Amino acid sequence: MIRVAIAGGSGYVGGELLRLLLGHPEVEVVAVTSERRAGQYVASTHPNLRGWTDLRFVPLAELPECDVLFTALPHGYAAEQIEHLSTLAPRLIDCSADFRLDDAAAYREWYGREHPAPEWLGRFAYGLPEANREAIREARYVSGVGCNATAVNLALLPLVRAGLLDPARPIVADVKVGSSEGGDRASESSHHPERSHVVRSFAPTGHRHTAEVRQVLGVDAELSVTSVELVRGALATVHAWLREPLEDRQLWKVYRTTYSAEPFVRIVHEKGGNYRHPEPKILAGTNAADVGWSVDPRTGRVVALCALDNLMKGAAGTAVQCLNLMHGWPEMTGLRLIGLHPV
Amino acid sequence: MIRVAIAGGSGYVGGELLRLLLGHPEVEVVAVTSERRAGQYVASTHPNLRGWTDLRFVPLAELPECDVLFTALPHGYAAEQIEHLSTLAPRLIDCSADFRLDDAAAYREWYGREHPAPEWLGRFAYGLPEANREAIREARYVSGVGCNATAVNLALLPLVRAGLLDPARPIVADVKVGSSEGGDRASESSHHPERSHVVRSFAPTGHRHTAEVRQVLGVDAELSVTSVELVRGALATVHAWLREPLEDRQLWKVYRTTYSAEPFVRIVHEKGGNYRHPEPKILAGTNAADVGWSVDPRTGRVVALCALDNLMKGAAGTAVQCLNLMHGWPEMTGLRLIGLHPV
Amino acid sequence: MIRVAIAGGSGYVGGELLRLLLGHPEVEVVAVTSERRAGQYVASTHPNLRGWTDLRFVPLAELPECDVLFTALPHGYAAEQIEHLSTLAPRLIDCSADFRLDDAAAYREWYGREHPAPEWLGRFAYGLPEANREAIREARYVSGVGCNATAVNLALLPLVRAGLLDPARPIVADVKVGSSEGGDRASESSHHPERSHVVRSFAPTGHRHTAEVRQVLGVDAELSVTSVELVRGALATVHAWLREPLEDRQLWKVYRTTYSAEPFVRIVHEKGGNYRHPEPKILAGTNAADVGWSVDPRTGRVVALCALDNLMKGAAGTAVQCLNLMHGWPEMTGLRLIGLHPV
Amino acid sequence: MIRVAIAGGSGYVGGELLRLLLGHPEVEVVAVTSERRAGQYVASTHPNLRGWTDLRFVPLAELPECDVLFTALPHGYAAEQIEHLSTLAPRLIDCSADFRLDDAAAYREWYGREHPAPEWLGRFAYGLPEANREAIREARYVSGVGCNATAVNLALLPLVRAGLLDPARPIVADVKVGSSEGGDRASESSHHPERSHVVRSFAPTGHRHTAEVRQVLGVDAELSVTSVELVRGALATVHAWLREPLEDRQLWKVYRTTYSAEPFVRIVHEKGGNYRHPEPKILAGTNAADVGWSVDPRTGRVVALCALDNLMKGAAGTAVQCLNLMHGWPEMTGLRLIGLHPV
Repeated sequence: MIRVAIAGGSGYVGGELLRLLLGHPEVEVVAVTSERRAGQYVASTHPNLRGWTDLRFVPLAELPECDVLFTALPHGYAAEQIEHLSTLAPRLIDCSADFRLDDAAAYREWYGREHPAPEWLGRFAYGLPEANREAIREARYVSGVGCNATAVNLALLPLVRAGLLDPARPIVADVKVGSSEGGDRASESSHHPERSHVVRSFAPTGHRHTAEVRQVLGVDAELSVTSVELVRGALATVHAWLREPLEDRQLWKVYRTTYSAEPFVRIVHEKGGNYRHPEPKILAGTNAADVGWSVDPRTGRVVALCALDNLMKGAAGTAVQCLNLMHGWPEMTGLRLIGLHPV
Repeated sequence: MIRVAIAGGSGYVGGELLRLLLGHPEVEVVAVTSERRAGQYVASTHPNLRGWTDLRFVPLAELPECDVLFTALPHGYAAEQIEHLSTLAPRLIDCSADFRLDDAAAYREWYGREHPAPEWLGRFAYGLPEANREAIREARYVSGVGCNATAVNLALLPLVRAGLLDPARPIVADVKVGSSEGGDRASESSHHPERSHVVRSFAPTGHRHTAEVRQVLGVDAELSVTSVELVRGALATVHAWLREPLEDRQLWKVYRTTYSAEPFVRIVHEKGGNYRHPEPKILAGTNAADVGWSVDPRTGRVVALCALDNLMKGAAGTAVQCLNLMHGWPEMTGLRLIGLHPV
Repeated sequence: MIRVAIAGGSGYVGGELLRLLLGHPEVEVVAVTSERRAGQYVASTHPNLRGWTDLRFVPLAELPECDVLFTALPHGYAAEQIEHLSTLAPRLIDCSADFRLDDAAAYREWYGREHPAPEWLGRFAYGLPEANREAIREARYVSGVGCNATAVNLALLPLVRAGLLDPARPIVADVKVGSSEGGDRASESSHHPERSHVVRSFAPTGHRHTAEVRQVLGVDAELSVTSVELVRGALATVHAWLREPLEDRQLWKVYRTTYSAEPFVRIVHEKGGNYRHPEPKILAGTNAADVGWSVDPRTGRVVALCALDNLMKGAAGTAVQCLNLMHGWPEMTGLRLIGLHPV
Repeated sequence: MIRVAIAGGSGYVGGELLRLLLGHPEVEVVAVTSERRAGQYVASTHPNLRGWTDLRFVPLAELPECDVLFTALPHGYAAEQIEHLSTLAPRLIDCSADFRLDDAAAYREWYGREHPAPEWLGRFAYGLPEANREAIREARYVSGVGCNATAVNLALLPLVRAGLLDPARPIVADVKVGSSEGGDRASESSHHPERSHVVRSFAPTGHRHTAEVRQVLGVDAELSVTSVELVRGALATVHAWLREPLEDRQLWKVYRTTYSAEPFVRIVHEKGGNYRHPEPKILAGTNAADVGWSVDPRTGRVVALCALDNLMKGAAGTAVQCLNLMHGWPEMTGLRLIGLHPV
């Protein structure tokens, strides 16, 4: 049993980390922080945890030393505190956007400010096992992943690796997302009568995760993010063009080559049924990413699809998967979670 | 007062036609048909009409002569019956897909069978006023429009007319739709526990409305249709590329040129707020189409947006707008419907 | 044409008043107030009104004199300002809870404070036409109605008037409501990820509308209010016991006696179909109240049902109905709104 | 490891049994039947199980012998086949309504037909551990529980056991339920555009589970069931009256007396927060039943609340809990499932 703590445990990613770590057989959660809720039971904030833990929030200043520190603080905060946070544990897994990009110029471009600790960018391994497993295994510091970026990256990874895409034509990633992506703070845009049943063009252009896709895949994808009626879940519909026509069995082979050994990626490409393509709702609460595709033989367009739970494979679940990798445990440890149907 | 009838009045488009025509000051609804429900009150099928009409369904065989016949029969049926249907009224407005394409070869390609009455294809005016107003004014026979095609067509029309798009790069139309697009017949895929909260890649490639976009705009757009949690409404997110950089005010001008005189198209392009881009939910029950755009100055991509109610501007509402045009009435007659907020 | 104004026009009831009054043939809306949004277009707050009005909000201090003033201010505010507000127009229709109760003691008991202007309580007619039509016709000042109280009152009115209920047994009114009842201000409880899909016991006991039911019906009903996944709409399921067994046709007669001449109350009591009982969703945006019942012959329990749109029949719609009554116009003037199906 | 099989595995309860039993450390699932889908992979029907099992459905005729047989067949079927089914395994747990009532006359009254195997009624233990644990431990045959009955029974059990309710006043159980209660077969009433956003009075009177409440509690409760927008979950709002006033701490004591040792019942009765009362959505996929109450000191009414997942604590979860009891395993074996938040 190792000792883990969570800095920033009152938000949705913090809550998911807690849910996962409380059920993880190799770890003990020794502390969870929240400034606003210090002294309160964590289960009063995360009502699903009632009966599963008696922990109370402590302020960050009272965080004890531990073996692994997870940080799920608001964007920007971990970067500003990294010198201090890194003294609290020999290993740190950050779930914010602060250490995802390895390039300070890209950070400046997409986040609109100077990175507060640029010398740390190179010390973090990008925390997507499917793209960066070996580095994570050896890392002391692992970054989080962007949920939308991850859906796009996992949809495209096999096609990009196999060099199948036509570089002369653009890649368009049209991502549909649920409301939990906006975090736990109420706002005018999250007010239920306004947010219900929207098909809201949240970020038709200029989404920050564009930079993460470029870094992971080495290609430019143009992102659009649309909010739909859903709490958890994201679907990336990625439109790209093949260099040359391919038959379905060839695409099967390409996807299998990349993913057959991956514990959390399932290929979903069936001829019929309601769930013949990846569907986020049946992945809620799990660390699965379901990927699939459709090819238009008239035009050579391939539509690559990836569904995931933005709080899990898009955040906390992948973070725990990284924890497992860093310690040499089986990757599914604490993550053997089956989704629900119907739901 | 003219006499109108609806052939095929038990489905969702038929119900919308009824709702609109019952409130239309220039028409009297003399008959509504349904084979399955002949003899029943139409309000038992369309419970929103309780108290507004005492009409009962009659079988098609009992349809009286009238001034205008609306047909909202299942796809294929009107084409097979057109010789007979055309004897019932001097003017006919069809809401099915049967007479939208003017080319029998395109029909064969997209609908997978020979058109049963190809000689009639040329007699129908395509029923989208924003693209074909003059022909509709003069027409005896007017076709319906595809809901998804209409969203794509209205989003792109200003850009295509102005010749702003780069022909070397593809157009991708990623359309999000509600469950009413599937019609009123229950099926395994419409079962509530299965259909709820989906982000379902209904037609990632190969959607039939591709042909309608080509016919109206003269360009090829690649369609993908994704079902989301919504009953009424569709949003087209159309990704295209500009030939050369344009400033926002130039795009305003282009959209205004096309739409400033249109009674049902509103330009929605605001700097802030929850509804800064077109949003289908606030259009439910109205004949409005809201259009907007976003440009990515990094890449020249323009994201053209159009929201509408698939049963209204995408079907019955546009059909009534055509009725008005054919009779020289103001286009908003019977269609002065304000949407709801919140909803 | 009379001149009307709305004090407090940025909230949901204010928005509905605007939607209705902009389409009302006998009135002109001369001003709408909002302190926070003074100077802004009302359509930027109420996006459904885009294209239908160019009005901008003014501060309350700039409200011009008019023929009828509607007030849709936060609870408590109209009562505090009533001396001033009453100088602005000869007639005033208030949509808040401030003047519903005619008894200052009841106000104190249920609202937990002294009424700021108790001498005004007797000057207001309670604004529910089905229960108080003649007084409204003659009134200069008309109060709003509580949405949940109205659903309970309309469900029970026929049974109470006919003296059919067993006074020895309690009346339980279990009301299910949508999120728009909470108003337009975002809060932790209205945050979409929290509010979605709830069956939340919002007020299992102690709901304030209890007092309005007592005042209107002269009986005590015990209210429970549960929030469900819905934006607009409320259903009252009112459990009561009959003094003696009644056949269905006797109950039909009782309900018809009360409601057959009512323009907005429909009796919904069918033997089959999805909509055999009152259903709020198909009433959204309309002023209809649908009422029905079910009797358990084993026990004598009658379940009286009423569905309505809380912002319409439960607030703004009834207020406009009162406007019509006060001016001797047909009650449906400006309120001939048909609901949607499917929705 | 014992060998278990599921007869009737293609429905929603069958799917939940599979999900639970595949993760249960003491059992091996040796067969799952479906007549319609024999030969197909179970994961094509239950897409959440992709990657977790390679089982295929077999017809009932090919069911092998096993240690425990779960039956999740349509109501009526198990009763007709019980002689045969009972030869397949020494222990049988039925999830249908067939063996819940111990009285053939009650079955006739509520199910409208003679029980096909009345001599078997007495051989089944009613499968609700909180009310019948000792009998289940010793039983060879265990019945399922009604989901709505269970919510009502668990809400009221402490109050009834402690003799606190006034017998002169009725008990009204107003239950709100999701669409999965209707099972996996599509119908006109489950069609998404119709079923969405309803507050549908599904069974205002005469619900069959009334008999189960009487059998378990020995009191008569009058049930009403209302369908709301939700897939999984039920909330019972049970209105009853106390014999004499009680303080909150006395009710705490009563609920604790009944439930403090129960592994799956949590008392939820907080002073504030969104989740201060039981809420079904955060229980989805778990075997928890959350119970709480509210007392109206003005009238003595107590509102007893119970939330649960109808497919879990209301069906498959409780069945697996019974399996554990029958084998002397800890009751939480295979059921340590934490709910999600947000969701």
